[in-house]
Amino acid sequence: MERTNYQASNCSIARTLQVVGEKWTLLILRESFYGASRFEQFHQVLQCPRNVLSERLSKLVDERILERSEYREPGRRARHEYRMTDLGRELTPILLALREWGDRHKTDPAGPPVLALHAGCGRQLHVTITCEAAHQVAGPEEIELVDGPGVLPLAPA
Amino acid sequence: MERTNYQASNCSIARTLQVVGEKWTLLILRESFYGASRFEQFHQVLQCPRNVLSERLSKLVDERILERSEYREPGRRARHEYRMTDLGRELTPILLALREWGDRHKTDPAGPPVLALHAGCGRQLHVTITCEAAHQVAGPEEIELVDGPGVLPLAPA
Repeated sequence: MERTNYQASNCSIARTLQVVGEKWTLLILRESFYGASRFEQFHQVLQCPRNVLSERLSKLVDERILERSEYREPGRRARHEYRMTDLGRELTPILLALREWGDRHKTDPAGPPVLALHAGCGRQLHVTITCEAAHQVAGPEEIELVDGPGVLPLAPA
Repeated sequence: MERTNYQASNCSIARTLQVVGEKWTLLILRESFYGASRFEQFHQVLQCPRNVLSERLSKLVDERILERSEYREPGRRARHEYRMTDLGRELTPILLALREWGDRHKTDPAGPPVLALHAGCGRQLHVTITCEAAHQVAGPEEIELVDGPGVLPLAPA
């Protein structure tokens, strides 16, 4: 495909980045995967500005990636907690793919800080690219990009 | 693992985001996968500020994700082109995982603008999570996170 003949405005990568591409957002989701649900839990690990954290959490709620609910500890005012939705859980391969590249190329000499294992089985996890005929794809030289049904040709100049 | 007992500073997700997490960087890499190599090719599709594009390309060269070389058209001054390295090609699962979530949840009604096929085979590609025993992992409820060799406990308060 000749790239410059198409609009890039409907690119699915760009649209996903509109949801999760801002600074801190993927790290907030990382903490949610680790089990954080309360504002102070996110803040304690991330140490990002509180107003930014608040804005990012609200955006993730608007996008239905996190679900906000109220909790109240005895004698204190009601507060919010944030839990991953199914839509948010579908972001797992993105986080694991980021992790795997970092584990390979950016760890300290001691190695990765965290291992992701298959629960029950105990083996380490990897992100792989497979096709619908169950072939494993080694790299981009095996990938062919073609027009999809939603392709938008550029208007003739 | 009790998350707040550990430093997050050596997290591999955060370290990958330090390399590719800035606005435009993943879209620059997307265009590189599509075959763009010259500044004007990137700029024509992305329409981002020229100084930002220039800065992002230089950072990707510093990180050895793109390789810069010179080319010269007859009668014109030498210019640079940028090609993906092997290290950059290893980012493919990140781009495909972003794409797949967007294809599922953010496309126009007509469907995805681009299909990624297994070259030769012609079937569509998916990003999957598999363990070293070749089990396919359905979601985060099957993932167990445990301390890795490089874990950094927090100093006692």
